[in-house]
Amino acid sequence: MNDKAAATPQAIGHERIDLMDRYWRAANYISVGQIYLLDNPLLREPLKAEHVKPRLLGHWGTTPGLNFLYLHLNRVIRERDLDVLFICGPGHGGPAMVANTWLEGTYSEIYPDIGQGEDGLRKLFRQFSFPGGVPSHAAPETPGSIHEGGELGYALVHAFGAAFDNPGLVVACVVGDGEAETGPLAAAWHSNKFLNPASDGAVLPILHLNGYKIANPTILGRMDDQELRDLFAGYGYEPFFVEGHEPLAMHRSMAATLDTVLDRIRSIQEQARAPGWHGQRPKWPMIVLRSPKGWTGPKEVDGEKVEGFWRSHQVPVSNARGNEEHRKILENWMRSYEPGELFDESGHLLPELAALAPTGTRRMGASPYANGGLLKRDLMLPDWKSLALEVPRPGGVIAEATRICGSYLREVFRLNAEARNFRLMGPDETSSNRLDDVFEVTDRIWMERIEPYDVHLSRDGRVMEVLSEHLCQGWLEGYLLTGRHGLFSCYEAFIHIVDSMVNQHAKWLKTSGELAWRKPIASLNYLLTSHVWRQDHNGFSHQDPGFADLVANKKADTVRLYFPPDANTLLWITDHCLRTYNRINVITAGKQPGPQWLSIEEAGAHCKAGAGIWEWAGTVAQHEEPDVVMACAGDVPTLETLAATDILRSAIPDLKIRVVNVVDLMTLQSNTEHPHGLPDGDFDALFTKTRPVIFAYHGYPYLIHRLTYRRANHDNMHVHGFREEGTTTTPFDMVVLNELDRYHLALAAIERVPGLAERAEGLAGELHGRLAKHKAYVREHGEDMPEIQKWSWPDKAATKGRQ
Amino acid sequence: MNDKAAATPQAIGHERIDLMDRYWRAANYISVGQIYLLDNPLLREPLKAEHVKPRLLGHWGTTPGLNFLYLHLNRVIRERDLDVLFICGPGHGGPAMVANTWLEGTYSEIYPDIGQGEDGLRKLFRQFSFPGGVPSHAAPETPGSIHEGGELGYALVHAFGAAFDNPGLVVACVVGDGEAETGPLAAAWHSNKFLNPASDGAVLPILHLNGYKIANPTILGRMDDQELRDLFAGYGYEPFFVEGHEPLAMHRSMAATLDTVLDRIRSIQEQARAPGWHGQRPKWPMIVLRSPKGWTGPKEVDGEKVEGFWRSHQVPVSNARGNEEHRKILENWMRSYEPGELFDESGHLLPELAALAPTGTRRMGASPYANGGLLKRDLMLPDWKSLALEVPRPGGVIAEATRICGSYLREVFRLNAEARNFRLMGPDETSSNRLDDVFEVTDRIWMERIEPYDVHLSRDGRVMEVLSEHLCQGWLEGYLLTGRHGLFSCYEAFIHIVDSMVNQHAKWLKTSGELAWRKPIASLNYLLTSHVWRQDHNGFSHQDPGFADLVANKKADTVRLYFPPDANTLLWITDHCLRTYNRINVITAGKQPGPQWLSIEEAGAHCKAGAGIWEWAGTVAQHEEPDVVMACAGDVPTLETLAATDILRSAIPDLKIRVVNVVDLMTLQSNTEHPHGLPDGDFDALFTKTRPVIFAYHGYPYLIHRLTYRRANHDNMHVHGFREEGTTTTPFDMVVLNELDRYHLALAAIERVPGLAERAEGLAGELHGRLAKHKAYVREHGEDMPEIQKWSWPDKAATKGRQ
Repeated sequence: MNDKAAATPQAIGHERIDLMDRYWRAANYISVGQIYLLDNPLLREPLKAEHVKPRLLGHWGTTPGLNFLYLHLNRVIRERDLDVLFICGPGHGGPAMVANTWLEGTYSEIYPDIGQGEDGLRKLFRQFSFPGGVPSHAAPETPGSIHEGGELGYALVHAFGAAFDNPGLVVACVVGDGEAETGPLAAAWHSNKFLNPASDGAVLPILHLNGYKIANPTILGRMDDQELRDLFAGYGYEPFFVEGHEPLAMHRSMAATLDTVLDRIRSIQEQARAPGWHGQRPKWPMIVLRSPKGWTGPKEVDGEKVEGFWRSHQVPVSNARGNEEHRKILENWMRSYEPGELFDESGHLLPELAALAPTGTRRMGASPYANGGLLKRDLMLPDWKSLALEVPRPGGVIAEATRICGSYLREVFRLNAEARNFRLMGPDETSSNRLDDVFEVTDRIWMERIEPYDVHLSRDGRVMEVLSEHLCQGWLEGYLLTGRHGLFSCYEAFIHIVDSMVNQHAKWLKTSGELAWRKPIASLNYLLTSHVWRQDHNGFSHQDPGFADLVANKKADTVRLYFPPDANTLLWITDHCLRTYNRINVITAGKQPGPQWLSIEEAGAHCKAGAGIWEWAGTVAQHEEPDVVMACAGDVPTLETLAATDILRSAIPDLKIRVVNVVDLMTLQSNTEHPHGLPDGDFDALFTKTRPVIFAYHGYPYLIHRLTYRRANHDNMHVHGFREEGTTTTPFDMVVLNELDRYHLALAAIERVPGLAERAEGLAGELHGRLAKHKAYVREHGEDMPEIQKWSWPDKAATKGRQ
Repeated sequence: MNDKAAATPQAIGHERIDLMDRYWRAANYISVGQIYLLDNPLLREPLKAEHVKPRLLGHWGTTPGLNFLYLHLNRVIRERDLDVLFICGPGHGGPAMVANTWLEGTYSEIYPDIGQGEDGLRKLFRQFSFPGGVPSHAAPETPGSIHEGGELGYALVHAFGAAFDNPGLVVACVVGDGEAETGPLAAAWHSNKFLNPASDGAVLPILHLNGYKIANPTILGRMDDQELRDLFAGYGYEPFFVEGHEPLAMHRSMAATLDTVLDRIRSIQEQARAPGWHGQRPKWPMIVLRSPKGWTGPKEVDGEKVEGFWRSHQVPVSNARGNEEHRKILENWMRSYEPGELFDESGHLLPELAALAPTGTRRMGASPYANGGLLKRDLMLPDWKSLALEVPRPGGVIAEATRICGSYLREVFRLNAEARNFRLMGPDETSSNRLDDVFEVTDRIWMERIEPYDVHLSRDGRVMEVLSEHLCQGWLEGYLLTGRHGLFSCYEAFIHIVDSMVNQHAKWLKTSGELAWRKPIASLNYLLTSHVWRQDHNGFSHQDPGFADLVANKKADTVRLYFPPDANTLLWITDHCLRTYNRINVITAGKQPGPQWLSIEEAGAHCKAGAGIWEWAGTVAQHEEPDVVMACAGDVPTLETLAATDILRSAIPDLKIRVVNVVDLMTLQSNTEHPHGLPDGDFDALFTKTRPVIFAYHGYPYLIHRLTYRRANHDNMHVHGFREEGTTTTPFDMVVLNELDRYHLALAAIERVPGLAERAEGLAGELHGRLAKHKAYVREHGEDMPEIQKWSWPDKAATKGRQ
């Protein structure tokens, strides 16, 4: 400890400690009250059965420790005028968050119905874990929270996401020892390798070891101090221990430690922000708090150990309504906090205690960082038209779609360089996914050693690459939730790694969308590339298009699925997504060179509609009834559909073909189910009511059936997609294996158009022959036949179709 | 280092080191050959363009290090007669695995077409990353592997899973420094807290720091040795460093280190297996190998740094076919291994080198542990009938389904106690999920300190609890893949955490099922409980039934989705799943007390059929055409469907109702799509071809539409399920929010049966009234109305229906 820290404890007199202890008792009292009481909130009369809730739901175990931390943070916020965001990792710490935000006044400001005083307290108690009320963990409803306490593992990664580009912020992140066992949390400690002490805020991790989960000790709780010290030194931190259970000693120890670590943080930041900083990664301080689970609760119930054990995890006294003895334990427990010393007659916190809390937006419950929409500034976005690819005719140009997207993102970085409110996340794949243009204006952030031969690494890069989808996702969530913007570019197959995080974020968006005081945040944007059809070289393990199915299960308001067929549509969609808020936008687009179909004007009109007829590709006019609809969604399915159409046009010139391309998959649902859904009339105008539709879709075919099952023409939908057939092979063989190739699509049209099978018997035979030839060729040469590699939409047909 | 280890290096003479180096060069040569060559495998003639593959796919970077490790493990296997399973964590280490198993002979034994000698070598080279060939990473096709190298993060957790209950096995687990950044890998180091040195095998983690990922340095690669030492000491290991690049020095260092760590392992095991062991967790050794990425490959290409940098990650010389200079680099590189010193005239490895590999099943490529089906013994299973619940009449008994399942699992543990081949995994939820009966015969395994007041913790428990679904899943996968059995019990919402692992395991099962030499392994069994309808108290974050949708996308052969409606059906299904192999069985069943419907005989018949008419619940005989089909899948939907039926029967006695319950969801698909699918005739016999079906389903309704969209009666399917409406409320309010409750189901029947709406107008009004009353009641009382809590199937109706 440096001198200043060592001197601090003396600065906190007995009187101050006593006041703080009373504040803590008030928070503990209110926490217990939430779990148990329907009425009699100040225990003015003896506790009766009818004062106790019929269903006791909630979690006591972690709560007193959280109250303890919140209190001590309040002190340093006041003394140092800090901006602190509190992240409550322990899953079921809800009672603590609610108690403290009520004590500091923010709860009543946000929910005026739950005022200060006895009546407000009664309502506060009643609503907790009660129908129409609030959950037992930190949630969107909780003031001061950006973090759902339901699924564990993401506290620390959210904390770092919040700290990036917020140099004035201290994020105090409480990590429970249960949560600390999860993978995402274990990896998140390494986030210090990506945090710049000069331009980012500080994260103060507080590992709260109360030793137990639901019914087991915790791994970290049972490790000795030496192993913990080694572990966190290894992660790059300087750990400080606060251990014990005697309240006054613990108050003194925590106060001294907090002063020490905040001095450390200040000194690290001052050094990094002064001229001559060499850019080395500092050893950030962290705190290990060992305190009993269910601290200050009943020691024993029914002869069994409760305090300091997992039996205090949820409701330590389980039958307080029905069993008089239990009720007595509860009453004694609550009275042990001496409510008379805490609240005045009207149930208001005594003024000398209320004075301990910070004021205004310094209150952690009122932090604007916890309601990021308040801070959000719209991105400056480039003129996408100026970045567009020149496409003189469909198929006339070969380009990599994601490379155009990369040039757009480069401009986004450039335009928002000063605002510092945009980041690009990816698991080591920004270059691999052909987004390298961004490196013209920024780098990858890297706080470890940088070698002279390293490429695009720097201390202030805005691209974040780490081989952990969990970290990418969690950082981005934390970044968005505190009012900034970003995009996560990922291999399509491996985005499933964060399925569960996406679920939780979708839930957060749904619930916070129902709370008027929560302001909209920027959308969570994905660019899924290196997708199933172009992972032929990496094989089956890299081939999975199922993320769309997961996302499609979410609330319609929240989710969008985009399948831009080429570069200009990808450009338009990317721009569009960066303008939206409170959504999860999933863009799937390939990175490999491919033919380009639409000029930027056509792309804009097509994307705005979400789905449309490509008249130039078919053989009939827009409104003429076709014999068959060749529909497609996704870049490779579009290519194969056009190639199939080319085959059919050439071989059967009088076949009436309409080509429909779908960019926005949600147009397929009815407009009663999804805001982007087409009205039935518009849908029928595209897909007809009676004609066979050969639908080439990027992912699992069932999704198309599911989205369209109420449409008139549903029974005529014949969907080709990923049938879970994959291996290491060529790009074209991948589509052949799944019957998504041009030959199978053309064969499907021949089979489904009434009467065509007879007329086109020769063509069918020829197509089967070409399939066999393909198979033999790739086995022999290891690459696709030249006629496949070189195919593009024929010039003449295109020109004619467009006129 | 102890004396023995210090003495070892001298034991390996120069001659031996030279031989070992030549073996390594052979493996490196064969690795490069796989990436590049179509022909001229021994470089008998100058390398020409046509000898080089047209598409160069594969990964060199990690390969020389893996070859180095495989070689050194070969030495200790021979010298110490060890049983070693090799886990190749680095994603794209395929060339190394293939090279080494070919060199030791196992590759040619398993794939006789790819023999030893020049012709075999040519085929070996050609097939790599080639259509019809093998992937560029370790995969099911790879001899000696239980681990897919595609998605990163699971090497170490698989290694521990393999080591449990295999006391004679050493699992050498190479962890890449890319992979080490992932969450699951970061958490997996803590697996040492669950490994008993007496009764389990040893895991030897080898962290291979080659410093780079695809386009970035790695976090662990750039950390200094002190931080690494701290980190792994903190995780509970004793790290040994092997660092450098000069081959002979590195051989010496690695040989000495391997001897040291294997001595350590022996000494730990001897101590733990001797009388008087105190059960303390040992500090297991681990190795940190720092060697250059692309070691021994080209130093520079086109003037840019390649060896020791990320440019060697994939194909270091990219245009060896088209560019003569590149081809020259490649040829020089390959010749630098001096193939003439490695292979004889016919292309066989020289005998003095071949003699370095172990023989028979000691060869890592021939380890039976890597083909677990070879070792698998069927479980001894109890007589489930004896464990059944007495159900005298439908609804006559209230019971917790999972508790009965727990008593079954208790018997499984008892019967297989000696075989030690069954484990139960769960994230701290075995008791919470009401499976506690298992603790009558086993405990939770725990290698940390055990306090006197701890409950059911011991050094040899067979229940594995850790707050990480990733670890539960990974351990179980490793355990199954090495020939054992198990079950993973999990909160339904949080099983999404392992979505991606399930994807990869499903891929493994599909591919290995196509390989005759891979023997079937036990199924991956899930019990999903604490499900969406009974997480009313934990709120929205705990409510997600979407895992079924993910699983349903997999190959039909592989997946089964079971929704047993009560205890006896759960008992039957659990028993059934434990008898199956090569499948992913997902059982969803609640833990809360609920009415029981079927006797054990009825349960058996019903589950065997997968779906059936519950004649006793309806108002018409089995084969009589009903007015409406009330269908259900899932315990809560079944309860609500029966309650709805009760309402309809009472109010409209002449309404012809049929009740259909679905246990095995895959019966809904056609038998042409799924082996459990019902033929159309059987399906129509249940659901009719024309009558409205009110289908109450446990999860997202779309899945039912998707599974049935080709059925004749599909347009009449009206599915009620989870509509993403959740919060903290009462159990019944959860179903009401999603319109899955009895009132909405009855209202749906009234709406859909032609002409009924007019007749039942009064009933409809009453039902709306009851819904309003419910809403008011729960807001007031915080629990469901007594009439809801107490409802059960009326005695009389049941008795009558059964006669």
